[in-house]
Amino acid sequence: MFGITVRDHMMIAHSFQGEVFGPAQQLHGATFLVDATFRRNALDKDNIVVDIGLASTELRSVIEDLNYRNLDDQQEFQGVNTSTEFLAALIADRLVDRIHRGALGESAFGLTQIAVTLHESHIAWASFERSV
Amino acid sequence: MFGITVRDHMMIAHSFQGEVFGPAQQLHGATFLVDATFRRNALDKDNIVVDIGLASTELRSVIEDLNYRNLDDQQEFQGVNTSTEFLAALIADRLVDRIHRGALGESAFGLTQIAVTLHESHIAWASFERSV
Amino acid sequence: MFGITVRDHMMIAHSFQGEVFGPAQQLHGATFLVDATFRRNALDKDNIVVDIGLASTELRSVIEDLNYRNLDDQQEFQGVNTSTEFLAALIADRLVDRIHRGALGESAFGLTQIAVTLHESHIAWASFERSV
Amino acid sequence: MFGITVRDHMMIAHSFQGEVFGPAQQLHGATFLVDATFRRNALDKDNIVVDIGLASTELRSVIEDLNYRNLDDQQEFQGVNTSTEFLAALIADRLVDRIHRGALGESAFGLTQIAVTLHESHIAWASFERSV
Amino acid sequence: MFGITVRDHMMIAHSFQGEVFGPAQQLHGATFLVDATFRRNALDKDNIVVDIGLASTELRSVIEDLNYRNLDDQQEFQGVNTSTEFLAALIADRLVDRIHRGALGESAFGLTQIAVTLHESHIAWASFERSV
Amino acid sequence: MFGITVRDHMMIAHSFQGEVFGPAQQLHGATFLVDATFRRNALDKDNIVVDIGLASTELRSVIEDLNYRNLDDQQEFQGVNTSTEFLAALIADRLVDRIHRGALGESAFGLTQIAVTLHESHIAWASFERSV
Repeated sequence: MFGITVRDHMMIAHSFQGEVFGPAQQLHGATFLVDATFRRNALDKDNIVVDIGLASTELRSVIEDLNYRNLDDQQEFQGVNTSTEFLAALIADRLVDRIHRGALGESAFGLTQIAVTLHESHIAWASFERSV
Repeated sequence: MFGITVRDHMMIAHSFQGEVFGPAQQLHGATFLVDATFRRNALDKDNIVVDIGLASTELRSVIEDLNYRNLDDQQEFQGVNTSTEFLAALIADRLVDRIHRGALGESAFGLTQIAVTLHESHIAWASFERSV
Repeated sequence: MFGITVRDHMMIAHSFQGEVFGPAQQLHGATFLVDATFRRNALDKDNIVVDIGLASTELRSVIEDLNYRNLDDQQEFQGVNTSTEFLAALIADRLVDRIHRGALGESAFGLTQIAVTLHESHIAWASFERSV
Repeated sequence: MFGITVRDHMMIAHSFQGEVFGPAQQLHGATFLVDATFRRNALDKDNIVVDIGLASTELRSVIEDLNYRNLDDQQEFQGVNTSTEFLAALIADRLVDRIHRGALGESAFGLTQIAVTLHESHIAWASFERSV
Repeated sequence: MFGITVRDHMMIAHSFQGEVFGPAQQLHGATFLVDATFRRNALDKDNIVVDIGLASTELRSVIEDLNYRNLDDQQEFQGVNTSTEFLAALIADRLVDRIHRGALGESAFGLTQIAVTLHESHIAWASFERSV
Repeated sequence: MFGITVRDHMMIAHSFQGEVFGPAQQLHGATFLVDATFRRNALDKDNIVVDIGLASTELRSVIEDLNYRNLDDQQEFQGVNTSTEFLAALIADRLVDRIHRGALGESAFGLTQIAVTLHESHIAWASFERSV
């Protein structure tokens, strides 16, 4: 099994609903380091997992829809706790959509799995992985 | 599959039995960065894997029983090589016990897997993973 | 010259005023890794720069006044761009106040300099240093 | 499942064939941080996954055959894109060869899996894993 | 004293002249993480050290003249050992030129010092600092 | 001003005397990441600060006298708190001795300053700097 990972980041504001979140129920924010991993069983004809340039561009594009925003104000997140693990899945799902639409190139149809990890600090991170 | 990880650390003294350990047969010590990862298939009703506050507290509590100690002097480790990989499993097992006893909250009964990684330096680490 | 550094972090929301900030004029957020360095010319009678326990506690206390907040809503920051470099200075100044008030112990009166670095991501950080 | 990882690095020059590589078609270079992970289901009689000294020595030896070289000039890589993911697999395969030849000690015959990750920068890495 | 740092990276090939370099006399390569630090005594009217967007853009531009190249083939480096410390100074000098030409904005004329650190691996880095 | 840094590590046991140390009065241990920085005003004839091979070898040699030991048992440390900051100074002083004795080569007589940082965990480190 082969994998490649690219890292980017985003800076957002949000708040959480539920006593379990303690002071994080207040409006606060986070820098998320976003690691997107693409996996496949064999390398493509160029000896790579995926075009790392396209992978970085598409990850950046997915992130740009969230970056420098207050997630509480976004229509799509009304009534949703935008937890680190939720955002990891959201980004993974959106990357899979783009893979299926061909945005990562034809060779990317050979990808079998994707994993996204969001680091919210030096001592906490969350991840989500799914098939492509 | 979702996962969240929390990091803490401990500073212990110990020595090893067996020629394979070379100079580490002498009494020495280590700072272990301890990464505990909790996994489940779907998020709970709050959109999280587990209460990260409880997870951190319980990890800290498990570590406190080892921290600032000479493991060679602990009754429970007589005749045992307290290797990095052994300690990773020990911490994982103790976290699973606490999950089963309800210490990480009711939602934590939905956890399916735990992984613990102990970094002994910038160039060496060990991990253990098991089902919950 | 001796120095010791302790690291903690905070998660805040804020926005900036001024075209130079581009999309960061929108309400967004950040995780700041906060590194506080304490310096002196010679070690104290215990062979240390400062009681690292007290240093960590006081840094935590300074951070708690900012953590999990929207800085735009804080009275003290009205009309102020709470940039990374500004916050580094704010934290340094507050630590110096606490040193002068004796909160870091009597030996801390021997400190001569403090530096605070705030990492806003893996690719950007700001710092401020001043005399104690 | 237990695992231990050792980290080393190498500094090589190479170029790629194929439009997908953009400017990396020119002769350039990379520092690769190389993380080699060894896995098994249960610890050996010394309570370890593998002799970490031997593991480090053999990883170093595998790396030495590539280090400080222009891979384009190596006979074995003629017509091959020595991508990060390709090199991860190459190193993993060579480590497995050495395990089978007994270079990591008799206990290493109990290893079941190996994973190699090559970090080409702070924002990109590739990995390969296979059974032993 | 205030400072801000931005990080980028480049991947180059080169070789060294002189016995002191051992195997690095062969054509090899490196990924350099490049940290550029800008310093001044007081913040500007926007409460910042320098426009971090312009600072990142100019650093990227300086790096682009070196990135994905074999430095041995560059006219300007004939007969020069392009050591890590030499490249740190080169990048710092070029950033100072751009500051003086106004590329980092008018407020950047208030900068007093620049420092550039190049990490060649996880265990070695070099830096150069000079006045602006 | 130019500088180069090399990183190594050591794993020791020790205990502290004095209430300020709390639980660290018990015999415990630490992994110290050791960063040794060498500085000079201008590069030598090879365009470097110092022979990085010799610098690494001598740092390793200084560390070997401490590594895998219980510092409480060493004659030289009787009645001494072997704090992180104390050990940083000890290593810096020993490196300066070696520079003066010629162990880092003739060009190393041009070094003007040395700094040593010891990381005891991901959240605490100490440093010492002095002239050469």
